Amino acid sequence: MPAKSQRNWTDDAHTVLRAPASLAELDPRDTPGYEGRKKEGRRDFKAGSEQLGEYQERLFANSRGGAKESVLLVLQGMDTSGKGSIVKRVMGAVDPQGVTLTGFGAPTKEELAHDFLWRVRPRVPEPGMIGVFDRSHYEDVLIGRVRELAPAEEIERRYGAIVDFEQELADSGVRLVKVMLHISPEHQRERLERRLRRPDRYWKYDPSDIDERKLWDDYLRAYEIAIERTSTETAPWYVVPADRRWFARLAVQELLLETLEAIDPQWPPATFDVEAEKKRLARAEI
Amino acid sequence: MPAKSQRNWTDDAHTVLRAPASLAELDPRDTPGYEGRKKEGRRDFKAGSEQLGEYQERLFANSRGGAKESVLLVLQGMDTSGKGSIVKRVMGAVDPQGVTLTGFGAPTKEELAHDFLWRVRPRVPEPGMIGVFDRSHYEDVLIGRVRELAPAEEIERRYGAIVDFEQELADSGVRLVKVMLHISPEHQRERLERRLRRPDRYWKYDPSDIDERKLWDDYLRAYEIAIERTSTETAPWYVVPADRRWFARLAVQELLLETLEAIDPQWPPATFDVEAEKKRLARAEI
Repeated sequence: MPAKSQRNWTDDAHTVLRAPASLAELDPRDTPGYEGRKKEGRRDFKAGSEQLGEYQERLFANSRGGAKESVLLVLQGMDTSGKGSIVKRVMGAVDPQGVTLTGFGAPTKEELAHDFLWRVRPRVPEPGMIGVFDRSHYEDVLIGRVRELAPAEEIERRYGAIVDFEQELADSGVRLVKVMLHISPEHQRERLERRLRRPDRYWKYDPSDIDERKLWDDYLRAYEIAIERTSTETAPWYVVPADRRWFARLAVQELLLETLEAIDPQWPPATFDVEAEKKRLARAEI
Repeated sequence: MPAKSQRNWTDDAHTVLRAPASLAELDPRDTPGYEGRKKEGRRDFKAGSEQLGEYQERLFANSRGGAKESVLLVLQGMDTSGKGSIVKRVMGAVDPQGVTLTGFGAPTKEELAHDFLWRVRPRVPEPGMIGVFDRSHYEDVLIGRVRELAPAEEIERRYGAIVDFEQELADSGVRLVKVMLHISPEHQRERLERRLRRPDRYWKYDPSDIDERKLWDDYLRAYEIAIERTSTETAPWYVVPADRRWFARLAVQELLLETLEAIDPQWPPATFDVEAEKKRLARAEI
């Protein structure tokens, strides 16, 4: 793995992207911790994709040797912040057999009849896997709060329930990477205009996106509260400026690479007698 | 999409790879229907990956407009025939959000308590998705037959049950692509030797692979019977010579491309008034 400096990062992404108390402090066009521009970013992304692929295979193999670690990337962000594009580009570079993706939409009737974490638990990645949540249990304290989809006391209760849940995951070996993709309202307008301009993008447009857009400041505030209440040592929040898509991709990839670097998964030793198996194979002619 | 001739295929993969009555007829090193060699194969594979990505997005969008079609790739083959590598390389080129993968291992106790199709049904791809089965319900008439894991009458019953099941899927819009990756015993020996030589591949080696290898001819016969009994007009079998991995990848990709070409998915029209939405967006300033 090339040294950090060769990858144009001046600092750990885990350090520079740690969520600030106020989102207003953060320029969505900024590229904190990264001194390259788009061109270098693309080159580093390509090299990073290869590294991520290697790490993923090691993580998977490691679990076959009994290791319990998995990685869970939680992606949140306003409409058009590029969650789907991150999944496609960052995770698309990895063997799909090592990845479990879950998109959390509006809960179904059955899901609503249960606790808000009920639908989330079965989607937690098994040992050796990289899980990705495109939206997540955080929706229940984001749109849940803004749209008052549950009583205020229930919303309050959920912050604590999330902290407990994520601690439980961490204790069982799940390394959480919680990312908010932070865009500007101008960026969103451009993306929505694009969807209305291109017939091959109509299917991505939903008139209700504009209703949500009108509540921009309420959503930002809900994010700030959620981040404050649920950023813990074991499961901190990261905020990735995402007006520049190349940077958002690179930054999320870097957070994953650092997480896997820390796990440092190893090829498991043989659980059989290698020399004896070589002989068995030599005898098994057909 | 470039014309077929530019992709070095002399004929439809669906035609030339159609399963023969006897597997002995087919040389696992052959490259039927393709006149290029490895170099051209790699180039065509790269171009095909891009096409497959485009088709997948259209298929997905199409389903948002109400279309019911999905694709289900069923991959079967002896150990080391390259099923995992096909998934990684062919499907890895596609947005992971449009793909559902299922690896079918030995059934659990719970699964064994149900009909053999019970665990398969929930894994059938939803409209707009490309599903992949790495092993499948066919294991229940392959290892099931060779290892006598069920009474002979039950194995017999399953062929008919599979035909009915797949017809039901086809009627609901699932386009099946059933592929047997066909390797030689020599190829398998090389792959197993490789796993025993490389410590980063030990985790892929299982001593029981040699026990199965000793039953090679029984498995080939079980494949021939399964293919004969379950190849139908709506869900035919294809046999892909797989000693040359570059060809196996290219051939499976081509089968998928032809399947998607036949579906010819379209971008759905807007379900809203585009001009009215443009105005709403212009007014929704923040």
